[in-house]
Amino acid sequence: MKNNLHALFDPENIAIIGASSNPMKAGYIILSNLIRIGYPKKVFPVSVNEESILDFPCYKKLSQVEDTVELVVLITPSELIYDIMKDLELRMAAKNDVKVIVCAAANYGETRTEEGRRRQACLIDTAGKYGIRVLGPNCIGVIDNINRVDTTFVETLLPSETRGKKGGISFISQSGSIAAAILMKGASQPAPISINKFVSIGNMADVDFIDLLEYFEQDEDTRVIGMYMEGCADGKKLIETMARIARKKPIVVLKVGRSDVGAEAANSHTGSLAGADEVYSAAFRQFGIIRTYNMQELIDNLQAFDSLPLPEGNRVFILSQTGGFGIYSTDALLEQKTLQMPVVTSETKERLRSMLPEMASICSPEGYADITASANVRQHVDALRAVLGDERVDSVIFLTVVPSFLPQKELAEELIRFLKEEDQSGKPVYVSVLAGNYVWGCRALLESGGIKTFDEPANAVSAVKNMTEYGMFLSALKGGEEFEQISE
Amino acid sequence: MKNNLHALFDPENIAIIGASSNPMKAGYIILSNLIRIGYPKKVFPVSVNEESILDFPCYKKLSQVEDTVELVVLITPSELIYDIMKDLELRMAAKNDVKVIVCAAANYGETRTEEGRRRQACLIDTAGKYGIRVLGPNCIGVIDNINRVDTTFVETLLPSETRGKKGGISFISQSGSIAAAILMKGASQPAPISINKFVSIGNMADVDFIDLLEYFEQDEDTRVIGMYMEGCADGKKLIETMARIARKKPIVVLKVGRSDVGAEAANSHTGSLAGADEVYSAAFRQFGIIRTYNMQELIDNLQAFDSLPLPEGNRVFILSQTGGFGIYSTDALLEQKTLQMPVVTSETKERLRSMLPEMASICSPEGYADITASANVRQHVDALRAVLGDERVDSVIFLTVVPSFLPQKELAEELIRFLKEEDQSGKPVYVSVLAGNYVWGCRALLESGGIKTFDEPANAVSAVKNMTEYGMFLSALKGGEEFEQISE
Repeated sequence: MKNNLHALFDPENIAIIGASSNPMKAGYIILSNLIRIGYPKKVFPVSVNEESILDFPCYKKLSQVEDTVELVVLITPSELIYDIMKDLELRMAAKNDVKVIVCAAANYGETRTEEGRRRQACLIDTAGKYGIRVLGPNCIGVIDNINRVDTTFVETLLPSETRGKKGGISFISQSGSIAAAILMKGASQPAPISINKFVSIGNMADVDFIDLLEYFEQDEDTRVIGMYMEGCADGKKLIETMARIARKKPIVVLKVGRSDVGAEAANSHTGSLAGADEVYSAAFRQFGIIRTYNMQELIDNLQAFDSLPLPEGNRVFILSQTGGFGIYSTDALLEQKTLQMPVVTSETKERLRSMLPEMASICSPEGYADITASANVRQHVDALRAVLGDERVDSVIFLTVVPSFLPQKELAEELIRFLKEEDQSGKPVYVSVLAGNYVWGCRALLESGGIKTFDEPANAVSAVKNMTEYGMFLSALKGGEEFEQISE
Repeated sequence: MKNNLHALFDPENIAIIGASSNPMKAGYIILSNLIRIGYPKKVFPVSVNEESILDFPCYKKLSQVEDTVELVVLITPSELIYDIMKDLELRMAAKNDVKVIVCAAANYGETRTEEGRRRQACLIDTAGKYGIRVLGPNCIGVIDNINRVDTTFVETLLPSETRGKKGGISFISQSGSIAAAILMKGASQPAPISINKFVSIGNMADVDFIDLLEYFEQDEDTRVIGMYMEGCADGKKLIETMARIARKKPIVVLKVGRSDVGAEAANSHTGSLAGADEVYSAAFRQFGIIRTYNMQELIDNLQAFDSLPLPEGNRVFILSQTGGFGIYSTDALLEQKTLQMPVVTSETKERLRSMLPEMASICSPEGYADITASANVRQHVDALRAVLGDERVDSVIFLTVVPSFLPQKELAEELIRFLKEEDQSGKPVYVSVLAGNYVWGCRALLESGGIKTFDEPANAVSAVKNMTEYGMFLSALKGGEEFEQISE
């Protein structure tokens, strides 16, 4: 009988086999990451060479640690696996306490050499004897921001803000480098991305997508699931699992191997099945699973699903302070056949006309207003209130290139006040503030106030499209109807 | 007979009508921008209310300025245009010196009101009498980094680095807010974008795309031309002009109004012709004009064309330190039918095998190598040298997610040393370094050393595709062949 994965996310003490005092080594960074996140229980570095690391006394072997150890991190050269597993057997005979191994080291089955396979078999077979679950090998580890666990060897420049920050996003990555890049890029948003649980699964020699998806399915703190995937051995079961869970929680996927050659590279990389992209693609459409195509689009969608209500229909109003980006976004929106730009009521048009600058362009085309660069903060907020108040509008894309003469702090504060306190419409607003460092402070204020912002308007369109389709999918489920996404 | 545009970029003294001492007003920011860029000649603020601004004495009227004034910036409420033009007539009768007016103020012809049209006619007719060229109205102005002119009212956070920095990119924007966003986003790259000349054309009541394209055609310091466009009255002549110039210099375009509704919005915005997107699109393909689809892709393409040699063929090798992004980039690359992944020689494969970590995946698939996260700096550079040395390779996409244990400064320095000093291949290398703030310092070092970096690998693919096609276009021209872009 297999353990469940509880000890992966909330272990009673952690040992690091292969800990190092060299700050450039993974065996050091894992220990320092555990300290940084404030892991509340005990950490035991295991090293044959060191006496102590970062003031933690070292043990020569795992079997010598007297306290309970539920999670073991392996970051040793892979040829040592045989000795380490022998020592694990000693420990389990005496204490029977280890529940999970995170094997961060590489040079196992993914090398497709006989020796690599033998090492992996030794690890998996030994662990299996005791019902110990194995994450990896060839992964970067696990983060749980609620239980304050971080076994990764990834550094970001914003550790304290990102790592300890709880959020509704749980993420699974099949690639270690993409996992690292998501953490690093996620930490570099105006307000760092709010991660709940984060897992790099590496070779999936034991713990796989399905195990983790099922764990996240039950996890109350997980509101949205993100996945980077290349493929897996049992694609049918994976899709069935994803389909079941997507009825409860949105799943946002970045899947590579779209091309045959890409699939061949994926096969070289993680040994995943080639050529199945059309199958995944069709399944995603049928089962309400959200597909994204680049890193920032993935992050933007995860954050939007985590922080905004689902639209109740497909009618999107574009409210823009900038003609250029308004048109640009209209193009992007109309490429999505799911979405429509609504004809609002004549009352709404009249309200907009009476409150906006004379130069404003109102509902020409329908569903679109350009409030112009001369709009002040009050006009930004009043126009948003008017549009949200129209019953023919389900969601709003709100765009502003903050000119030098528009006070950014006031704009952010008034938007937070309106959207977080006053507005009762229950409709999502996708706020795009442009551009670059000049508006970074404004975006950081908005995001700290709970309002997701977009740098690229096309990604705001991607989020509204995906959330609209997911809402339609859930409605169809309730009504017992078949669902097929219109656009991909 | 019309003046040429020389005085727009290198005027003998500048007057600002509507200058202000309020730092939140455009009339203040224009003056402070001229000071900041170090405009070497004289500036005369004209204001009915102020005595002096930023220690510059003010004049009540333009006609009172005793020195020569070649460029006049107008940033007054538009209803004052009649009085200002009367005063201009006085000045021209007495001095006949003004050559260009930059009308930054809005509320002219773009309002499509009778009064707006009348104001615009007054401006254009009066200027026309004296052969004075008019930029705008409804624009944000002009920048020339070589002659140190900046009449814009756009602020960025990196003024001294961006504004005075000379480069080969000259840009024309039909939208003021997109012009501002490009300046702001361009200033927020790891090393700020190098602009030569930058023009926001607004209503194009006089100076239009064609005037500026012809100016940039002759301008020796312009190596690549960028354009944001919605449309224009004489599309046929514009396309003919672009086609002629694209034989000499690359033109990179972001064109909106792709959808009919987007085109309607464009028509509301700048009065440009609707529904002609297919015409532009076909013309771009036929005449070697490069089209991009979002802001970062536009900036990345401009910088790549400005800093990298054109590939001599379509064979692109993907050299990746990261399996995940390697596959991701392979997918993106193979969506471009123009590009191929080459079968390199067995000597190259052997060289790679002998120098790289055991786990490295070499040429499976062909044209692709994953050097793995265990590759050190020397292995990064040696592998790049080996691939560039293969005669079957025309360009290289080089990807790295810098792990915590890879020294970033050393990586940047060694790449600069190799690419800028040692490498004689003449082949372009598209360097993508991931991700976020964690690698910002590394990217800034590389870019300061003259090596363009990409944050989004799909944009590296976009640049290599566009540069490859442009190279094929020029070759076909030399050979007298017809050219049609394969992919869009």
